[in-house]
Amino acid sequence: MPLDLKALVRTIPDYPRKGILFRDITTLIENPEGFKESVERIASQHRGKGITHVAGIEARGFIFGAGVAIALGVGFIPVRKKGKLPGETIGQNYALEYGVDTIEIHADVLKAGDKVLLIDDLIATGGTALAAVSLLRRTGATVDDAAFVIDLPEIGGASKLKAVHVEVTALMAFEGH
Amino acid sequence: MPLDLKALVRTIPDYPRKGILFRDITTLIENPEGFKESVERIASQHRGKGITHVAGIEARGFIFGAGVAIALGVGFIPVRKKGKLPGETIGQNYALEYGVDTIEIHADVLKAGDKVLLIDDLIATGGTALAAVSLLRRTGATVDDAAFVIDLPEIGGASKLKAVHVEVTALMAFEGH
Repeated sequence: MPLDLKALVRTIPDYPRKGILFRDITTLIENPEGFKESVERIASQHRGKGITHVAGIEARGFIFGAGVAIALGVGFIPVRKKGKLPGETIGQNYALEYGVDTIEIHADVLKAGDKVLLIDDLIATGGTALAAVSLLRRTGATVDDAAFVIDLPEIGGASKLKAVHVEVTALMAFEGH
Repeated sequence: MPLDLKALVRTIPDYPRKGILFRDITTLIENPEGFKESVERIASQHRGKGITHVAGIEARGFIFGAGVAIALGVGFIPVRKKGKLPGETIGQNYALEYGVDTIEIHADVLKAGDKVLLIDDLIATGGTALAAVSLLRRTGATVDDAAFVIDLPEIGGASKLKAVHVEVTALMAFEGH
């Protein structure tokens, strides 16, 4: 019987604020089989596509992305919050509910011909993921694939990624916001 | 010939401020063989010790820690900055050059009998690592081992960890601060 990964995700009501059901992946990654199986399923969905790099979004995307990069035998690129990378960077702004945030990558990390798989733990509005796709594509690299552990399809982030020609996979979906 | 991991670490002078030689592991993890080999070497140093969990320190410690957890077949515990974990937490303060910072873990994540391997990319003063050891031990778990990719022995962090009975390994050392 395949492992029920969804049962390993804990739901915390009213976090980070009232009315939100927060899907907590820490209970999944604390489980040895759950964590390993999550990474292996994502990797197996993307073998044979010619992926050259996995890019993970800070910070929970680092946890799954690092595992998938090793499973696929490719390099790992951290997509970081502003001011965290020591070398020359390029950045991309994206809108938050109130205000603007910025993500960055090293300017020299990718080139035309590279093929990136973007990874994060969860896709909700897709704001950060869309910004990451734009940022990674500015290097000349191809970004045709994004993988998430959890999709919240009612919020519509995956549809936004598909609209910019990114194929989206998720290991599970939850109803609601 | 074994892979020269040290040659894959980039040194950035005067970052984050004048006089500091910043050891940048992003060039190591972007290299497929370099990243995989780093993780495999750390894992092989700790096989057979009965490790039940790998704890990684946010954020670069997530990248190596996740890989090592999967390689050892154990669960992964994120040691996060204050306010980032959704469940009930316990926290530990530690001194910065100017001020105080706090790291947190979920309160229910470990118990007596668990045996944790602590991982981060680099040990310098050891302030964060020492706080993480104290925090993890407060759950009743054992923390006898800490692994780093890079040690800066002149700064003395590894010695501080050894003084609290933590065995420290590092894949490489750099002179200077």
